[in-house]
Amino acid sequence: MSTPTDISSIIDGILKNDRVRLGRAITLIESTRADHQQTAQEIIEKCLPHAGDSYRIGVTGTPGVGKSTFIDSMGNFLVEQEKKVAVLAIDPSSQRSRGSILGDKTRMEQLANHPQAFIRPSPAGATLGGVARKTRETIILCEAAGFNNIFIETVGVGQSETAVHSMVDFFLLLLLPGAGDELQGIKRGIVEMADGIVINKAETDRMELAKKSKQAYRNAVHLYPAKESGFSTKVELCSSLTGNGIEAVWKMLEEYQTFTKSNNYFNKRRAEQSKYWLLETVREGLLSSFFGNETITKAMTKVEAEVVSGKRSPFEAAEFLLNIFRKE
Amino acid sequence: MSTPTDISSIIDGILKNDRVRLGRAITLIESTRADHQQTAQEIIEKCLPHAGDSYRIGVTGTPGVGKSTFIDSMGNFLVEQEKKVAVLAIDPSSQRSRGSILGDKTRMEQLANHPQAFIRPSPAGATLGGVARKTRETIILCEAAGFNNIFIETVGVGQSETAVHSMVDFFLLLLLPGAGDELQGIKRGIVEMADGIVINKAETDRMELAKKSKQAYRNAVHLYPAKESGFSTKVELCSSLTGNGIEAVWKMLEEYQTFTKSNNYFNKRRAEQSKYWLLETVREGLLSSFFGNETITKAMTKVEAEVVSGKRSPFEAAEFLLNIFRKE
Repeated sequence: MSTPTDISSIIDGILKNDRVRLGRAITLIESTRADHQQTAQEIIEKCLPHAGDSYRIGVTGTPGVGKSTFIDSMGNFLVEQEKKVAVLAIDPSSQRSRGSILGDKTRMEQLANHPQAFIRPSPAGATLGGVARKTRETIILCEAAGFNNIFIETVGVGQSETAVHSMVDFFLLLLLPGAGDELQGIKRGIVEMADGIVINKAETDRMELAKKSKQAYRNAVHLYPAKESGFSTKVELCSSLTGNGIEAVWKMLEEYQTFTKSNNYFNKRRAEQSKYWLLETVREGLLSSFFGNETITKAMTKVEAEVVSGKRSPFEAAEFLLNIFRKE
Repeated sequence: MSTPTDISSIIDGILKNDRVRLGRAITLIESTRADHQQTAQEIIEKCLPHAGDSYRIGVTGTPGVGKSTFIDSMGNFLVEQEKKVAVLAIDPSSQRSRGSILGDKTRMEQLANHPQAFIRPSPAGATLGGVARKTRETIILCEAAGFNNIFIETVGVGQSETAVHSMVDFFLLLLLPGAGDELQGIKRGIVEMADGIVINKAETDRMELAKKSKQAYRNAVHLYPAKESGFSTKVELCSSLTGNGIEAVWKMLEEYQTFTKSNNYFNKRRAEQSKYWLLETVREGLLSSFFGNETITKAMTKVEAEVVSGKRSPFEAAEFLLNIFRKE
């Protein structure tokens, strides 16, 4: 159990950019123990006034596209310029191994050892909602600790893109060179969600292919509806291996930030995201108190069978369950 | 207010295929008055044991593809064979005019006047959830009245496809001839959801184009993951204007029904849909009792502003609101 002294020493540590204390606080966020959760919430509330002043960048793309290598390369480029970088990940499928790609430190060894960088694997969790919440709370602490360039990698497939998109200022899609089959494996919705596209692995032998892909995507993004940000989606080439193009990608990221801060979209998007997480957490809380109720669980089994067999309309059955819940 | 005598006369009427009484009962379903709603629920419960034995077919496609004309043509083909047909629609955008396309009777004049057919425009409603619920309840009454071929047309754009998909046995996508730009305007997800595709308006001058489209879609659907039904998506041509191909489409619909009844997918899908609507109604009910609570509404305004300005974390704020709700 954490005493008040512990809590203030953790908070002090975070505000002084102490990576060990930051790590301890995140462990509390990730813990399922009620007392840990309470301590974590206190720390978060204390860190909140010092959070927010950062650039949150989401990185997505299919497995094998080189997301970790890209973030490593970009991260090293940034720390060389005296910038502070935090790397987080969302991997709702990682509860078994607890090892997301980022847990595999060899992938980001150089960056992980840099004093201006902080790397944290995806938290374990049963639900995407839970994992996403922990990641979003971790962002607050990283910002309070002064890590003002935060990369969030999507690791699991499926819904994690939406979760990451709802917590970042810029959503970056990485693709492999190869025009023609470019849409394979990437849902069209993801391309539409991207604020920028980077063709990774644009190295000598694939340069022609990469250039073709770039052109194809430039044409494709024009077909999509205009973005609310007012920033037209750019397509860049890079090689995370050689570092070529990394600077151009960062320039695109900076341009976006300047542009959306001047037209106020940056703040508008953050406000919308905060509202979204407020409502989303309320929704989850309501459902979990409903389905966590023992009387409901018992009634549910019976009612569900009646609904499935057509004896009861799903609507009447739902009202019946809601009435039980209201009385509880 | 309906007296018990009224209710039993309505129920008797419905079970005797009386279209006027059926219409009156649906008006009660669509009413927002509490007493009407109560009567409607009683009628639905009484009709439930007589419902379910039908073929529910959803029809979707972009505006201008000819959904109403197709359903009119298919409906006339079916009533000529002594079959009973009901046509419903889901149009969450229709609350202003209350006039969905189906409300425009001239489009289905012939079918509307046939004694074996029953046509009902989309109910008015503020939310898609509300409109969908009313439509699903209407299906129960139509089935109890013996209309055992039920067509549900998506009218509004956007989410209504998912709502219709979650209440039908077969989800039919109508497309226009024109290979090449075939995916325009249709979300990829909709094509994947379709149990069958029909290229409409395959008339003389467009026949070549229609045939090309058919081939293109046949190739395209093979790229999608196999359907849980085990039935591979077929592509048919038809002209709702001349009636050419309507019989082939019906044959496809019948084949699907026979196939999925024999492998039990038909019942499995219905059971899943019932569970889905049970949970969906619970979810909606929980949210509406939360957001309908006056104390919550007042607290919400303040809390939301604090969250947006970064003074409060969305998660802590959500817990705060949930605690108020639990105490109420």
